[in-house]
Order: sequence, then C-alpha cells, then structure tokens
Amino acid sequence: MSLPQHIVVEMQELPNLRNPSLVCGFPGSGYVGKLAIDHMIEELKAIPFANMFSSSFPPQVLIQPDGTTDLMKNVIYYSRGQTNDLILLSGDSQPVTPDSEFEMAEEIVKICDKLGVKIIYTLAAYITGAFSKTPKVFGTSTMPQIVKDFQKYDVSTMNSGSITGMNGLIIGVGKRKGITGICLLGETSGYVVDAKASKAVLETLVKMLDLKLDLTGISKKAKDTEQLIKTIEDQMGQRGGESLPMAQHDRKLGYIS
Amino acid sequence: MSLPQHIVVEMQELPNLRNPSLVCGFPGSGYVGKLAIDHMIEELKAIPFANMFSSSFPPQVLIQPDGTTDLMKNVIYYSRGQTNDLILLSGDSQPVTPDSEFEMAEEIVKICDKLGVKIIYTLAAYITGAFSKTPKVFGTSTMPQIVKDFQKYDVSTMNSGSITGMNGLIIGVGKRKGITGICLLGETSGYVVDAKASKAVLETLVKMLDLKLDLTGISKKAKDTEQLIKTIEDQMGQRGGESLPMAQHDRKLGYIS
Amino acid sequence: MSLPQHIVVEMQELPNLRNPSLVCGFPGSGYVGKLAIDHMIEELKAIPFANMFSSSFPPQVLIQPDGTTDLMKNVIYYSRGQTNDLILLSGDSQPVTPDSEFEMAEEIVKICDKLGVKIIYTLAAYITGAFSKTPKVFGTSTMPQIVKDFQKYDVSTMNSGSITGMNGLIIGVGKRKGITGICLLGETSGYVVDAKASKAVLETLVKMLDLKLDLTGISKKAKDTEQLIKTIEDQMGQRGGESLPMAQHDRKLGYIS
Amino acid sequence: MSLPQHIVVEMQELPNLRNPSLVCGFPGSGYVGKLAIDHMIEELKAIPFANMFSSSFPPQVLIQPDGTTDLMKNVIYYSRGQTNDLILLSGDSQPVTPDSEFEMAEEIVKICDKLGVKIIYTLAAYITGAFSKTPKVFGTSTMPQIVKDFQKYDVSTMNSGSITGMNGLIIGVGKRKGITGICLLGETSGYVVDAKASKAVLETLVKMLDLKLDLTGISKKAKDTEQLIKTIEDQMGQRGGESLPMAQHDRKLGYIS
Repeated sequence: MSLPQHIVVEMQELPNLRNPSLVCGFPGSGYVGKLAIDHMIEELKAIPFANMFSSSFPPQVLIQPDGTTDLMKNVIYYSRGQTNDLILLSGDSQPVTPDSEFEMAEEIVKICDKLGVKIIYTLAAYITGAFSKTPKVFGTSTMPQIVKDFQKYDVSTMNSGSITGMNGLIIGVGKRKGITGICLLGETSGYVVDAKASKAVLETLVKMLDLKLDLTGISKKAKDTEQLIKTIEDQMGQRGGESLPMAQHDRKLGYIS
Repeated sequence: MSLPQHIVVEMQELPNLRNPSLVCGFPGSGYVGKLAIDHMIEELKAIPFANMFSSSFPPQVLIQPDGTTDLMKNVIYYSRGQTNDLILLSGDSQPVTPDSEFEMAEEIVKICDKLGVKIIYTLAAYITGAFSKTPKVFGTSTMPQIVKDFQKYDVSTMNSGSITGMNGLIIGVGKRKGITGICLLGETSGYVVDAKASKAVLETLVKMLDLKLDLTGISKKAKDTEQLIKTIEDQMGQRGGESLPMAQHDRKLGYIS
Repeated sequence: MSLPQHIVVEMQELPNLRNPSLVCGFPGSGYVGKLAIDHMIEELKAIPFANMFSSSFPPQVLIQPDGTTDLMKNVIYYSRGQTNDLILLSGDSQPVTPDSEFEMAEEIVKICDKLGVKIIYTLAAYITGAFSKTPKVFGTSTMPQIVKDFQKYDVSTMNSGSITGMNGLIIGVGKRKGITGICLLGETSGYVVDAKASKAVLETLVKMLDLKLDLTGISKKAKDTEQLIKTIEDQMGQRGGESLPMAQHDRKLGYIS
Repeated sequence: MSLPQHIVVEMQELPNLRNPSLVCGFPGSGYVGKLAIDHMIEELKAIPFANMFSSSFPPQVLIQPDGTTDLMKNVIYYSRGQTNDLILLSGDSQPVTPDSEFEMAEEIVKICDKLGVKIIYTLAAYITGAFSKTPKVFGTSTMPQIVKDFQKYDVSTMNSGSITGMNGLIIGVGKRKGITGICLLGETSGYVVDAKASKAVLETLVKMLDLKLDLTGISKKAKDTEQLIKTIEDQMGQRGGESLPMAQHDRKLGYIS
C-alpha cells in the first residue's frame, strides 16, 4: 500500500543492532502502553536515534516542561542487551485518520525491516469497565505457535474481538512483511490512567524478552493507581453502595484498545 | 478515476475461469449479504485465491477463533460449475470513506475485467423497519432488459431511492466498464441479523444463476432469526400491544443498504 | 491547485459553440437551483454531451424511474441560441468533502475554458427562515461592474456573508482563470422545495441572458409551492397564531446556500 | 512532508526584504490574532504581494463590502522598517483538516525560507473562561533562550498544554527548517471578540520587534470590548449574582487556541 508521503523520519544514523525486537507504546486507554514504554526507556537509559513526524498527528504543538514547544512526534530509542538489542518506540499521539494510521504502521514496519527486527511487541489496554485487584494480561499474535505458548507466561488468549489503532495495525501490517507480531494487553477499567495494568504488562514482557528491568518506578505509580481506585470506590460506596463492579474473568469481555 | 493506491491485492495465481459471474457479500444492515455469501462459500467449498487489503478499512486487526490476529480484508474465492464458474467475494468490512469505497469498487471491477466477468451480483438489504413473515426480494440492474426479466424470478422492482455503499458502487462502477450489474435486496426490518432475508436472496440467486446449492444451513439460521423475531414481538406485545408493525408492501419504502 | 484525479469526464464530443455562457444548478436548499436548471433543460430541449463522475459524490447509486440504476453524476447539456449558445449543468449531488468541491469546481472551469465560456451563472438559494409573497432575487459577481448593473434587473446586492458549496466555488475558481462569475440567489424560507424561488431566479436570468424561455412549467410548480406554504401557514395559524414570520426585507439576512 | 498540492500561491513579485520577521494572524478564538494583524496592516500601510488559496479552506466564497465575491485566502503583506522589514500574513480562515493545516504551515515556511525570514511570530488566544481586567500575555518559543527572555517583556511562560491550529503548526514546522518561532497568546474569556486581548498582544509585540505602531485604533476597539463585557456582567449580575468569574492568574489554565 503506497500512500502519498505525510510522514518524515529524522534519523541521525541507523544503529547497528544485534537481533533486535521492537516494543511500541502509544497513548491510548488508561495510558497502559505509554506508561510502560516510558518506564522502559527511562530504566534502560535507552538512546534516541529517530523522530517520526506526521501531518496526520493532531494539528498542534505540545508545550514542554521548560516552556518551549515542538510538533507531536514518535521518538525511537535503542537499548543494547547481553545478546539481543531492543528498539523502543514512544508516541506523543496516534494519527487522527484511518488512512494515516495504516501509513504510520507501514513506515514503522519499514524501519523494522532496515534494522533487522524479527518480532514486534505492542502494549495495549484490555478494557473491562471494572476495577481489578490483580489485572490479567491478555495476548494475541500473528503466529499460531506464539498463541499456544502464551500459557507459559500466564497470558490469557482471546478468540474474537478486535485491536484498534496502532497497536493492532503495526502487528497486522508487520505480518504482511514477514515480521512476527505480539500484542500484550493489560486489563484495565478504562476509567483511570492505570499504571497497575502497565506494570502487569511489563512483568509479562520482561519474561518473554528474558530482560532485566527494575520495576520499582512503575510499581510506585501502580500504588498511586491503587490509591486512586480506592478513593473512587469509597466515594461510590458512600453514595449507597453503587460501587463499580469488579471484573468477572469468566464473563465475555469486549472492548480492546 | 485514478486514485492514490491504498489497496493491495495479494493473489496466488489468476485462476482460469469459464464465463464467470461475481457474487459479492459485504457486512451491512442485517448482515443479509454477508450471511448469504458465507453460506455459498461454505456449501460450494469455494477456493480462496486472492486477499484485498485496504488502508481505508477500519484501522484494526480482527482476532480469529484460534487466538491469532490479522488485518481486515476481502477474500475472493472461485467455485467451478458445470459450464459456468463463480467468483465469490466476502468482505470483513466496507471502507470507511466515500473516496475509498469508490476506489475499492474500481479495484474489484479491475479484477473482474482480468477474469472475464460479464455479470456482477451484489447482495444487499432492503430495510422496512417492520418484521415480514415472508421477506420479498427487490432488485435493480444497470441493464433495462434485466429489470424487465425480474418478474420471472418474483423479484420486485423499484423506481426511486438509492443503494448506498459497496453494493451500489460495484455495479455502478462496473457499468462504466461494460460489465452488467445486478443488486438483489432481501427485505428486512433492520433490527436484527436476518438470515431469513439472506435465505430469500439466495433462493432468488440460485434461480437466476441456475445453480445447485444446499440451503439447509441458511434455513436453520433463518429459523433462529424467526425465533428471535417472535421473542421480540412477544416482549413488545406484553408492553401493551405496541408491537412493531408488519411491513405493508403497498407502502412506499425508503431505506436501502 | 492540482489534485489527485478523482473525477472522470465522459464526453462524446466537444460541441462547437458560439460565445457560450454556462448555467449551473445543483441540489441545495429548497432545490432552487436544481428545479430551475432542470426546467431550462426540458424547455430548451438541451442536448447532453458530457457526464461527470466523481469518487467524492455520495457513495451510492440512484435508482431511475425505469428501475435501472446508475452512479451519481453531473450531466452537461448545450442549447443553441440565435447568436449565443448556452451550456447547462445539472448535478445529482454536490461532492461530500471541501477538497472535492474545489476539485469539481476546477474541473468544470477547465471544461468552460475548452468551450470558450466567458460568463458562468450559478443558481442558488437565499435563505430567510420566513415565507415571502414575492421572493426577491439577490446577486453577487466576481466583477464590480456587474454588481453595479444588478439594479437594472431588480437584483438585490449583498455586502457580507458567504456562498457555500459549488454555487460559490465555481465562480470563485472561475475568477482565478479569468472567467466572469455571477451567482443569482432566489429568496426562500429554507423549509420547503421552493419552485417559487426557482421561478424568480429564472425570470431574472432570462432577462440577463436575453433568452426566450417558456415559464409555464415552473409557474405551475410555483403554484404548488404556494399552496403548500398556505397549508403550512394555516396549520400554524390553528395552533394559536404562531405563524411563521414573513420575511422583512430591511432586516439583515444571513444564511446563503 | 511532501503532500499532494492543494495550495496555490499567487505572487506578483518576491519583494527584496532586509532581515524580515513574519507575523501571522488567523481567525480563531476571540479573533485575537486576526484583529491584531489587521490593525498592523492598516497602520503600517503594508503592501500586499501574495495571495494563498487552498482547496482545504471552507468551500465557500466571501461577499466583499462592495458586493463582489472571492475565494477565501491568506493575503501576505510587507512593510519596510528602519533597519528590519516586516512580513504580515492575514488569513480569511484556517484550513478545515489536520493534513491541510500541516500543508499550509509548510507552504508558509517555504515562503519564509525564500524571503530570508529568521523569526516567525504567531498571535493567538489564551482562553480562561473568565473576563480579565488587564489581560496577560503568555508566550512560548521553539528556542529555550527566548523563553528565558520572556520575563523582560512581561510575558508569562507555560509548562504544559498545547497550541492547536495554524498558530502552533507554523512555528513547529518552522523549527524543523531552522526558523525560530514565537507564539504570543492574549488572555481572553473565549466568550467575545476580544480587542482587549489583541491590544495586549500588540503592546508586547511592538516591544519585542522594537516597532513604532500607533495603537489608537485597536485601543478604541478594546474600549468597545470592555463595554460589551460590562454589559454582559451587568446582565449576569441582575440574574442574581451569577456573574462570570474573573480569571485567577494563579490557577492552572488549560485551553489554548
């Protein structure tokens, strides 16, 4: 699918990476993927090597903490491991039209191709509309064998529904180019920014990647999320017991983002 | 109308077909066309030979029953007949913008041209807002002679209104390229997935195509639809007789999809 | 402004016309322009010579009175006069996006250029939200001299506001290519299909074009409109005098279409 | 980012300017930037040298005070100063889609590049939802040093949020091409056309540009705004004291346009 060029990739140099996997985090429901990727980038002291700009990002500039401003962008980092390197992509936004979401996915897959990426992970949210004590991690993949292996990592599988936006498209487009895709989805209510779900996703991811990653930072944020949920539940309780229902895992759950 | 390329057709090989007709089924009101085409594909053990991907499908991947995931697509099948072969197109979705609906219609007509298709059938819904005991089948065509012949097949004609989406565009674009188009529309309330309407459309189609097709499967589903409608009507009746009106065939009916 | 090609013009032959003007009528508020142009085409027995198809028309096919169906289109006709010939454009629809409205306007202006058109007339509605006994005709032009001459024809001028859609864009784009544009707007409530407004516009147009045109047909339809308005006013009156206000011509009126 | 060409720039000649800065004013909340730029153009008797037309402006023509009509456009003027010249851009509208906002920003930056522009100022609104006696001016820049210098000019800085539309994109796109961008935002309620905010922005701008500019005209309009606000507040007061709150500058304010 060749589209008119709306994306500019500014790359200082193409890093020479050993057997790299890509992990993507975009803003979405509960900021599950975004919090997770930003934690990884910080902990791994990952090195930025490319910016992606797109005319289909929301038409605005973001004001930075230092008072300056810049266009919305994806920043791509790398982090060297013992035997395998990692590429980490953190997005300011998802594109605003379907066409440009596909285009962005294709551009990312093109970069993967140049860097020799064999597996792409996207980190997403699995929305239940209910607060969960111990959020589960759901997963899907473009490869049947990986779906079978999910149980080793305590990842729940799904048999219907869809994954919308960049988290779905990147692995869908990657499949067409021969790159394996895995999407891990942290269970979340959808009501709050949910670092608990991010932490659950990261715990699974480090096992799958056989990665050393200090989770102290995200664990602290997860505590904050827990506290926030407790406050909400208390308030709901005071209004005469109309507390939000806890997730029932045997129920069929629908919305994925 | 040449547009920027948003569609990718993955074709294993161009099958050599004898005097083929194309039958298209897309998701739409009541899933009338989609249920009908999927029944045909199953019963005829049709052989897939092409996938169509488009950046204007909804930006998501669909999770399959086996837990894996793939981009939305149209799959095109063929089925050999005694003297004439059939091409069957089943879509996961309709494109999300007008421009891309036209583009997809043109791409399908281009494939028809390569395969020597002379007639295209699209299967659609004729929405009445009322439940019908014996759903009628409506029809229109790009050829006046075919409209005249509709009465042989007990197909009702229309003299105004429009057919929106792929079911209309494919035959409209086909006409401009010299391919005859026929749209068959099954009468449906628009309230439920309606296998009864699908069955009615298939009964007409097999007569027009002089095709042998076992309708047992769709007949079972039609029974389920009937049961569902009965349940709805009973519930409406209990609420004090505000049952949904039955369709009145002499009334002018408007919405077509 | 060169855009990706979404428009196809099917032209049998380029007619050789003497000093032609173009008159355009599109569906819009009150169908003022559309009724007017279709009356002209019928009365002048104008000869169709071109179809314009666009992927930005609404994605549907229209069912014709004979039961057949075709894509939405603009049809362009010509009519020979004593010394000057006329080109008449009747549209099934306006395009659905701003970009494609501009594109369509450019394509029409390109055809004008080939045919030697010096003046383009567009026929539009001037919406007041009130019923008028004797609808006025408003006008604007891309040429100051023509605005000055409007009073000769009893055409009211405007000094603010905007003309949206094809009626505005065609004369705006034409201006950039050196073609004079005139938009005539028939005063209408905006509540009903208004043949009275169409008739008023046509009465002005025939004077400006020095054209012989039998107005019997449109006058009959104007009577129907009058009857319909009377019925509405009677019904409003019976509800306790909340009749819709008559237009006050000295008031500042805003919405134009 | 190269996009299909939807913009036409009509330029009589490329003026030879000494060290020019560009100041842009577009219609937006409170018309803050638009009133300011039009005041500058009038007072400086700036000379128009280019028109920008775009197929992504709203699809309409604007009726001028003299009764004629023209497409929506940006007009670009220049004004010679003692040592530095100014370029002034006044827009009839902002484009209607994200993609075309980026495209327009790129086209403007391209013109800046040709004319040797080093700094771009955009004039915008800082919406508080409350009336302010003495509106503040907020600022952001693509250069950290300029943000530090803001306090010299009594310009408040921001550390989060976004600037949407052309005012943000022009400086964001300019940054990528090595042009420094500054956005000045006049505090406004967002409820009325606010010449007070425009005046505040202009007072800051003339200091930063070291420009002589008679502010009598905009000061008169600012008085009108003050009167209008007083009227609104009086009416609110009469309804039992639900007067709109005055802005509290220590509060975190969000919406910027």
